[in-house]
Amino acid sequence: MTPMKRSKNDQICPPPQPLLIVLSGLSGAGKDTILDALRKSGFPFYFSVSATTRAPRPGEKEGVDYFFVSKKKFQQMIDSNELLEWANVYGNLYGRPREPIRRALQSGQDVIVRIDVQGAVTYKKMLPGAVAIFMATPTIADLERRLKSRNTESKQELELRLKTAEKELEQLAIFDYIIVNRENEVEKTVADVRSIIAAEKCKVVPREVKL
Amino acid sequence: MTPMKRSKNDQICPPPQPLLIVLSGLSGAGKDTILDALRKSGFPFYFSVSATTRAPRPGEKEGVDYFFVSKKKFQQMIDSNELLEWANVYGNLYGRPREPIRRALQSGQDVIVRIDVQGAVTYKKMLPGAVAIFMATPTIADLERRLKSRNTESKQELELRLKTAEKELEQLAIFDYIIVNRENEVEKTVADVRSIIAAEKCKVVPREVKL
Repeated sequence: MTPMKRSKNDQICPPPQPLLIVLSGLSGAGKDTILDALRKSGFPFYFSVSATTRAPRPGEKEGVDYFFVSKKKFQQMIDSNELLEWANVYGNLYGRPREPIRRALQSGQDVIVRIDVQGAVTYKKMLPGAVAIFMATPTIADLERRLKSRNTESKQELELRLKTAEKELEQLAIFDYIIVNRENEVEKTVADVRSIIAAEKCKVVPREVKL
Repeated sequence: MTPMKRSKNDQICPPPQPLLIVLSGLSGAGKDTILDALRKSGFPFYFSVSATTRAPRPGEKEGVDYFFVSKKKFQQMIDSNELLEWANVYGNLYGRPREPIRRALQSGQDVIVRIDVQGAVTYKKMLPGAVAIFMATPTIADLERRLKSRNTESKQELELRLKTAEKELEQLAIFDYIIVNRENEVEKTVADVRSIIAAEKCKVVPREVKL
């Protein structure tokens, strides 16, 4: 047996594989702002939508914000292993259907899953080939300032959020990348996300995600 | 003992470390063109210059193209372990002084070492924390076309170059990234190099280079 010979016209580098990107980080660091700006910058990706049993809030759209399903339907999804993960949050069920993500990846689209840090840890353990990005403010004091300026939390809620942030930071080591989202530097942050995606596609040994 | 507590004002992410980038790949893939374009794009880096015992060619500048040194001086550099690596090419000695690279990294500058594939393999074994980029044409047939269009090689030399390219490709696995430099897409290639550098600086576990 002789080893297979490369032909002169073979592509040296196989076409890059689509990525499963887990975007997480401190709550209040600006994930949604960055996702919006990324979309507006013309970067094409499939944004993974969760299923939930809670009622739609005014303005929320089916298939855009959530897949709104009944408790019975949700239970069926659990039973037939259709959800990558799910959780009960104050009596409402939230879960991520596997099929839309699989379809998007198969069609060559990058997929972004926005999720809290605990969820990101679950994904990274389940799918080590996912690219996990942790978004942070420069300092915890910056996070505090941002949360205060929103003026949506009581003093107690704010304390809890800052404690949670400390705990979330303890999970940093499981992530691949950290992006610091500085005040008034949305474009820089978006550029970092795009650079990470572009660089991952140049890797000699690409990551593999099996859904 | 209690673990050290993070203060609210501590930077969550330490400032990114400068990188040692080893730029290599198929000879004829366009490394010099890309380096020139990278420089012109305003990206700041220290370009590592080799020392050589050969005489300067017309137009070559001391400290820009090479450090031109006598055989005696070169031997002293070898003896005092000042060179990261060196080689004898057709009777002329070529080697890379360690000190300018160390100084650039210490001052916070990224360093680019342009080197042939064999040299890159040496660097990657010696300094695994270096970021090794392999630049390729889309196919070997494309490389052949580019070399032919230069019209500088005899048929025999061309054959040898293509055989060398096949051998160089066998070393691809030791590299971190591969960039395909397509005809008339210099900007895309430069953007890929910059993305790789930006992404590496977002890594949660940065690479470490000890010179």
